[in-house]
Amino acid sequence: MQIIDGKLISTKLKEEIANEVLQITSTGKRAPHLAVIIVGEDGGSQVYVNNKIKACEFVGFKSTHIELPESTTEEELLKRVQELNNDSELDGFIVQLPLPKHISEQKIIEAIDHSKDVDGFHPVNIGKLTIGLPGFVSATPFGIVEIIKRYNIQTAGKHVVVLGRSNIVGRPVSILLSQKTEHGNATVTVCHSRTPNLKEITQQADILIAAIGIPEYVTADMVKDGVVVIDVGTTRIKSDQTKSGWKLKGDVKFDEVSEKASFITPVPGGVGPMTIASLLANTLKAYKSKN
Amino acid sequence: MQIIDGKLISTKLKEEIANEVLQITSTGKRAPHLAVIIVGEDGGSQVYVNNKIKACEFVGFKSTHIELPESTTEEELLKRVQELNNDSELDGFIVQLPLPKHISEQKIIEAIDHSKDVDGFHPVNIGKLTIGLPGFVSATPFGIVEIIKRYNIQTAGKHVVVLGRSNIVGRPVSILLSQKTEHGNATVTVCHSRTPNLKEITQQADILIAAIGIPEYVTADMVKDGVVVIDVGTTRIKSDQTKSGWKLKGDVKFDEVSEKASFITPVPGGVGPMTIASLLANTLKAYKSKN
Repeated sequence: MQIIDGKLISTKLKEEIANEVLQITSTGKRAPHLAVIIVGEDGGSQVYVNNKIKACEFVGFKSTHIELPESTTEEELLKRVQELNNDSELDGFIVQLPLPKHISEQKIIEAIDHSKDVDGFHPVNIGKLTIGLPGFVSATPFGIVEIIKRYNIQTAGKHVVVLGRSNIVGRPVSILLSQKTEHGNATVTVCHSRTPNLKEITQQADILIAAIGIPEYVTADMVKDGVVVIDVGTTRIKSDQTKSGWKLKGDVKFDEVSEKASFITPVPGGVGPMTIASLLANTLKAYKSKN
Repeated sequence: MQIIDGKLISTKLKEEIANEVLQITSTGKRAPHLAVIIVGEDGGSQVYVNNKIKACEFVGFKSTHIELPESTTEEELLKRVQELNNDSELDGFIVQLPLPKHISEQKIIEAIDHSKDVDGFHPVNIGKLTIGLPGFVSATPFGIVEIIKRYNIQTAGKHVVVLGRSNIVGRPVSILLSQKTEHGNATVTVCHSRTPNLKEITQQADILIAAIGIPEYVTADMVKDGVVVIDVGTTRIKSDQTKSGWKLKGDVKFDEVSEKASFITPVPGGVGPMTIASLLANTLKAYKSKN
């Protein structure tokens, strides 16, 4: 059994990006530029945004951090989005979610120029992913595919079972792994809350992707020997063993499932660290498509 | 066992649309308007286009048939698309595929205003379908869901196995049936040419959707008793039993599979007739969204 080190491969990916940026800037060209808009003062979001800005510094990107007050109207935010769309020296930007309730997230997402939508949430990018055209793949499915690539996990002809059908994880990763690509060609089953005989299906999985957000839901009796387990769950639960008073739990009962698995991602330290690297990779891709 | 009568429900759907059009025009409003562009002289395409125009007449739509020569350049076609995009009295239009080889189909599809894309091929509409937002669903997946609705076939908690991962059939229908909707909520497995243990999986299907284009590929030993079979295959094969010298064959060996099935679509007369009705339904939807 091998524990997948998401931190390690995320660092490798970031180093590769940093090297590429160095090559670009050493020729006198400007560095790639990512902007992040955050509206309001959600504590979790601020941590995420700070991490994204730090990652930009690490790889040598220019970054712009735009903080707007909670009271920002939808119209005002749309205007800011338009300004960023029109900024020819900006390669990509994201609007950190969730947004305050008086703003339609979908309206904002659709207002972003899809060629700068490095979060990959615009319908054009989701549509392109679905039909196998190049575009921006959102962070978690990108990270999962990257893990599969870098650990040389074979997917062709394998049975992938995805637990969860969310628009940002289950659905896109199920599509990517089933497509006619080098790291696709799997037979893919999507299960969810309405699947009655879940265990019967998960037991068939060569690769199990758990993305349902129920801590320790997947137990050893649900998987077969040699399974590859990708755990996307990150639920905060109270803990008296940590200073902060809480810890992250995955969807998989790690101790017992890891005994049967050939590869398994831990939580934290598995898929999580890959997501910021994905954002950087998309921004570099946006830069290169225009420069 | 019940044979699904695609012709019958297609006619019903068209009659419902015709009634709605009558109600609209009786108030003095203009009728919905569909345009079809055909480039070149592909025999098959001309038959399809004529059928679409006839169907428009049947339901009381205004229709415009634009025939362009094989020698039309991509630029010229893009110009025509732009004209139709800008025509405020046109609700929807399609560019009949395939196009001559010197024209990029994807470029043309992406040039169509997605709010007039009644074929449902624009990445925005595919993206919206993927994340469950309202938009235009393309003809065959639309027709399959309509069959399931009108025959009251339960999908929630059922295992749907889709044979084929094409962008116009297998992929979209697999997404639709797995979503959290009244006619969704199924556990869905997508199989394809790289699936090694196909029979093992198809035998689990409560609903089997065959869309691989290999005549009579699905045999009785591959399905369980009571299965619902939707056969999307339409391969022309030579026949000395018909005047034309050929007949249509589905992906399913009808005679033997029908003996085990609870519902089954025949070929021809199953999914096929639904596709034109889908186009009309999308055009009416486009009209209503603006009028």
